[in-house]
Amino acid sequence: MRPIMSHKRVLYGYWRSSATYRVRIALNLKHLAYEQHLIHLLNNGGEQHLPLFSSINPNELVPVLIDGEVTLNQSLAIMDYLDEVYPQFPLIPKDLKSRYLVKALAQDIAVDIHPLNNLRVLQYLADDVGIETEQKQRWIQHWITQGFHALEKNLASTAGAYSVGNSITLVDLCLVPQVYNAERFNVDVSTFPTIDRVVQALRSHPAFIDAAPENQPDAN
Amino acid sequence: MRPIMSHKRVLYGYWRSSATYRVRIALNLKHLAYEQHLIHLLNNGGEQHLPLFSSINPNELVPVLIDGEVTLNQSLAIMDYLDEVYPQFPLIPKDLKSRYLVKALAQDIAVDIHPLNNLRVLQYLADDVGIETEQKQRWIQHWITQGFHALEKNLASTAGAYSVGNSITLVDLCLVPQVYNAERFNVDVSTFPTIDRVVQALRSHPAFIDAAPENQPDAN
Repeated sequence: MRPIMSHKRVLYGYWRSSATYRVRIALNLKHLAYEQHLIHLLNNGGEQHLPLFSSINPNELVPVLIDGEVTLNQSLAIMDYLDEVYPQFPLIPKDLKSRYLVKALAQDIAVDIHPLNNLRVLQYLADDVGIETEQKQRWIQHWITQGFHALEKNLASTAGAYSVGNSITLVDLCLVPQVYNAERFNVDVSTFPTIDRVVQALRSHPAFIDAAPENQPDAN
Repeated sequence: MRPIMSHKRVLYGYWRSSATYRVRIALNLKHLAYEQHLIHLLNNGGEQHLPLFSSINPNELVPVLIDGEVTLNQSLAIMDYLDEVYPQFPLIPKDLKSRYLVKALAQDIAVDIHPLNNLRVLQYLADDVGIETEQKQRWIQHWITQGFHALEKNLASTAGAYSVGNSITLVDLCLVPQVYNAERFNVDVSTFPTIDRVVQALRSHPAFIDAAPENQPDAN
């Protein structure tokens, strides 16, 4: 059950945005109530480009979190912030080595896989580079598969019930949305046994269910 | 003057890698001595793909830092780690709001600009998508220019002598290598007056001079 909001907390996002999905999971795990301001990335020429939103984030990318006096973009920064200010259900381990292992693995997904397959990149590839749908699919699959090969090797030695040991961490919050994308673009995730096993386990957690794209008010 | 090393500290990197360049600046600012292990990203089919390196980082990307018992990839995680363990010359402000402002701005560069123009992406665009040199140049310029437009708006309200206020932060460590790349691919940085001014100031700092690509042993 979510507590009553103590101050204004608003998440600007889009149901299918992986980066927004990560932040929804974090908010849910920490039982932090929030309003969703829905920014439709395709309608109206992309609502992220409208002045109402671009004045909040000139990068014209979701998510943006407003938490009382703090306005913050970048999902990694937002999750880091939430973990510091709301320490219930910690997402980053206390132990020095584990802490930075978790940060690096989360970044392996959020820096080296996801930005290459973002909507704006796929749009640019289609509209300006002029690649076909099939070639676009190959592009997406290439980067996800390459990243997952490395991640599978790493998780094979770090995973317990979840990506790193037996507690849910930042890595899991990046992994589940990335696997959602992988499946959407027909990457066979079952060829990555550790990733597959961890994601199956996470998907039954209420915080992850509640954050899933198909369960958002703007899903279609 | 660098102190004597208290334990083994090795940076695996490449002179022109922006992400390695960031970490070199951090190590210099903190007066931390280190050995460089040079991984040539083009020779021998890309030395990052050789087992010697891929066993250290299955992602086959530089940089990797070995600091005593800690082995860490991902430049953002490495800089964060260095700032925690070696607090001299802090790179991340103490104040909560400034701290996350700095992290988000650094990520605006390191997550949303740089990964799109990484060597492996440019190689894939040329070899697999089959785009021409001129179109590749347009690709690079597009993402840098788009990112710099947003960054310029943000820095116009955050910058003092440097990107955020009057102390050097993580943002500056990401900005200088990104501007190096921009100039390499003929983006006219003078059209971004705040970025241009801040980078001019940073370029005269010994830690930045010493970390510059052209001053590395593997530069050619």
